[in-house]
Amino acid sequence: MSVFDASDYAAAAQSIVEAGRFLYQRGWSPATSSNYSARLDSQHLAITVSGRHKGALRPEDVMVVDLTGTPVQTRARPSAETGLHTVLYKLFPEVGAVLHTHSVNATVLSRLVPPGDALRLRDYELQKAFEGINTHEGELCVPVFDNTQDIDGLARETRRWFGNHADQPGYLIRGHGLYTWGKTMADCLRHIEAFEFLFECELLTMRTGG
Amino acid sequence: MSVFDASDYAAAAQSIVEAGRFLYQRGWSPATSSNYSARLDSQHLAITVSGRHKGALRPEDVMVVDLTGTPVQTRARPSAETGLHTVLYKLFPEVGAVLHTHSVNATVLSRLVPPGDALRLRDYELQKAFEGINTHEGELCVPVFDNTQDIDGLARETRRWFGNHADQPGYLIRGHGLYTWGKTMADCLRHIEAFEFLFECELLTMRTGG
Amino acid sequence: MSVFDASDYAAAAQSIVEAGRFLYQRGWSPATSSNYSARLDSQHLAITVSGRHKGALRPEDVMVVDLTGTPVQTRARPSAETGLHTVLYKLFPEVGAVLHTHSVNATVLSRLVPPGDALRLRDYELQKAFEGINTHEGELCVPVFDNTQDIDGLARETRRWFGNHADQPGYLIRGHGLYTWGKTMADCLRHIEAFEFLFECELLTMRTGG
Amino acid sequence: MSVFDASDYAAAAQSIVEAGRFLYQRGWSPATSSNYSARLDSQHLAITVSGRHKGALRPEDVMVVDLTGTPVQTRARPSAETGLHTVLYKLFPEVGAVLHTHSVNATVLSRLVPPGDALRLRDYELQKAFEGINTHEGELCVPVFDNTQDIDGLARETRRWFGNHADQPGYLIRGHGLYTWGKTMADCLRHIEAFEFLFECELLTMRTGG
Repeated sequence: MSVFDASDYAAAAQSIVEAGRFLYQRGWSPATSSNYSARLDSQHLAITVSGRHKGALRPEDVMVVDLTGTPVQTRARPSAETGLHTVLYKLFPEVGAVLHTHSVNATVLSRLVPPGDALRLRDYELQKAFEGINTHEGELCVPVFDNTQDIDGLARETRRWFGNHADQPGYLIRGHGLYTWGKTMADCLRHIEAFEFLFECELLTMRTGG
Repeated sequence: MSVFDASDYAAAAQSIVEAGRFLYQRGWSPATSSNYSARLDSQHLAITVSGRHKGALRPEDVMVVDLTGTPVQTRARPSAETGLHTVLYKLFPEVGAVLHTHSVNATVLSRLVPPGDALRLRDYELQKAFEGINTHEGELCVPVFDNTQDIDGLARETRRWFGNHADQPGYLIRGHGLYTWGKTMADCLRHIEAFEFLFECELLTMRTGG
Repeated sequence: MSVFDASDYAAAAQSIVEAGRFLYQRGWSPATSSNYSARLDSQHLAITVSGRHKGALRPEDVMVVDLTGTPVQTRARPSAETGLHTVLYKLFPEVGAVLHTHSVNATVLSRLVPPGDALRLRDYELQKAFEGINTHEGELCVPVFDNTQDIDGLARETRRWFGNHADQPGYLIRGHGLYTWGKTMADCLRHIEAFEFLFECELLTMRTGG
Repeated sequence: MSVFDASDYAAAAQSIVEAGRFLYQRGWSPATSSNYSARLDSQHLAITVSGRHKGALRPEDVMVVDLTGTPVQTRARPSAETGLHTVLYKLFPEVGAVLHTHSVNATVLSRLVPPGDALRLRDYELQKAFEGINTHEGELCVPVFDNTQDIDGLARETRRWFGNHADQPGYLIRGHGLYTWGKTMADCLRHIEAFEFLFECELLTMRTGG
């Protein structure tokens, strides 16, 4: 049986509890939606247990799974979308945290992007909030995958896309929400804030006829 | 005279006080509007006293009525809409809490749905926040009743509709607000959050020309 | 010299400090705008000193004036709009508090109502939040006065209009804000909340093409 | 080497920490964006260190630079936009604080103003929140500069424009954000609130078809 460091788990669980409090308070994880994870080591991650209130998580609402998504040392059931997290940890060894949120803006915008298209963001100073981006002059490309209850299939799609676009920091699922990641939980939260800012800008511009 | 358990009343009153604090803070129960209830037993429910500030409820702002809406062991006057609550407790023995709120989004959306139509919600992952729904692929149907000061008449209309649609989790009253329910107060609050999320998505989509 | 009761002043000042904290936090009194008052007796009112931060009022930021607007027992300068408050206390002996706020919604809506027209609100359940209104079926009429730095002239206009429409609970000044009043500060705050709710509904409906 | 008063630095740092907490909480400084400064004396200012979370600044996240932008008594790296701050302190000896924020509304509005045009604001009572403005009848002119990573060039542009328009209280950078200033930090925060209010009014009016 694979073994993880219990202190790493305790620290990861605490960082997830705090992230949840922040994300729920912002309205980005309503009604027990969303799931969050943090890497423990090369083989394990801590991830939220299925169906909990994200603004009131306790450490016991966070469990450990290995990179195949199998629960380790726990009777709890992980989020149904665990497979979307493990893809990212396997693909990007430097990734330390993955957050999936369900904001109104992400939901609405993802339904407005025509099928097959990606959301393309340009000329926003805030693009510099993403790791490795130093100017507003490039283009951020956010793919929009169709929603499905077949998580294995969606996991394969995301692996394929990000295998070819390792420099892009997140994706949308149509009518569902946002996935983004970062080296640390702080980086990942900064990415969430930046994406939500940009989604709000895009929707507001569309509404204002810009 | 019918008798209820005083500890059940105390617990129900506290759950209603806390629900009010949350719902008022979100802006969903402004200006002393809204009313909330929780079941005590097969014959009694606790319900808010008429006209109180929902963000600053005290336990004494919650009173007991029986399933006919008659006050029990109190001189207080219950909400004028008590009859809309008792219909639901009689129709659904498993229901433990009913919340009625007055958000801007529920109010505006309910006025935009053409008379005779229902609001139909599809392809939102968040539909899974409702009890018993496991996929975004179904359709949520939210009937919109005309507003009236004749609460008895409206109570009959809701009894008739939900007698035939027991799987639907709530309804709107035009220009007025939302009713939803759940097995526990936590379930009911999750339903409110999910409905408000979906209403906001729908209105934002309409405004964005989606 | 006219004399007021110091305890009445202390209580009124405290109610104004608390109202300011609430109204600023809601975003309805930004950037030191707005002014608030509460009646002490048939001859005196407490009113905010000119130019203070409404979210951080201290009791000494509230002063006493008589019904002619003359400061009593103070070196402080009252709000430039004091004359709009005293008109209401003279016209309506039962009024105990007057609040003037500057929300984005009140500002924008007041600029969209055509000159000479009033804002008319119908079929909102929340109209019942106003004193003396028991049904959503009537019409609330909110006059919109042109903005001016001639406060005496505006005071005369409001006296004339409300002399003939004593049942209406408030008015707008174009590009400027809302005035409303009530028997108690709690009533007046309920009216602010109800007006802001209705303004938001109207603007949202206009934007959604309703 | 130029010397500054350490108590002045401590006080300025604290005022910046508090400003950041407020501005982040309002959503105007997301994702480590924005930078803030306060004058210490005729030769020095305190300014935020590059890349910190603006809602959780500590005094050590604020450093001192001289009017050429050179760090004084510190190993820290100042904001990349320090040159935009020093221009203002040199141009306006009475200025005591400069704030640069990144709100959604400032970002979207700055992208909607046609290149070469300024944003012009008229007939808003809240224009009186700006230092030296006593009526809503004048016109506030907010220039919109193109965004660039060439801060020296942009600094020269702003020096030229405000050299000729010393009575105007702020400017926008397209797709980027707002710069404003004031005699004290409190004045500067009032200007931010007033600008954000006016930007929201303008965008809401455009969306409502006003």
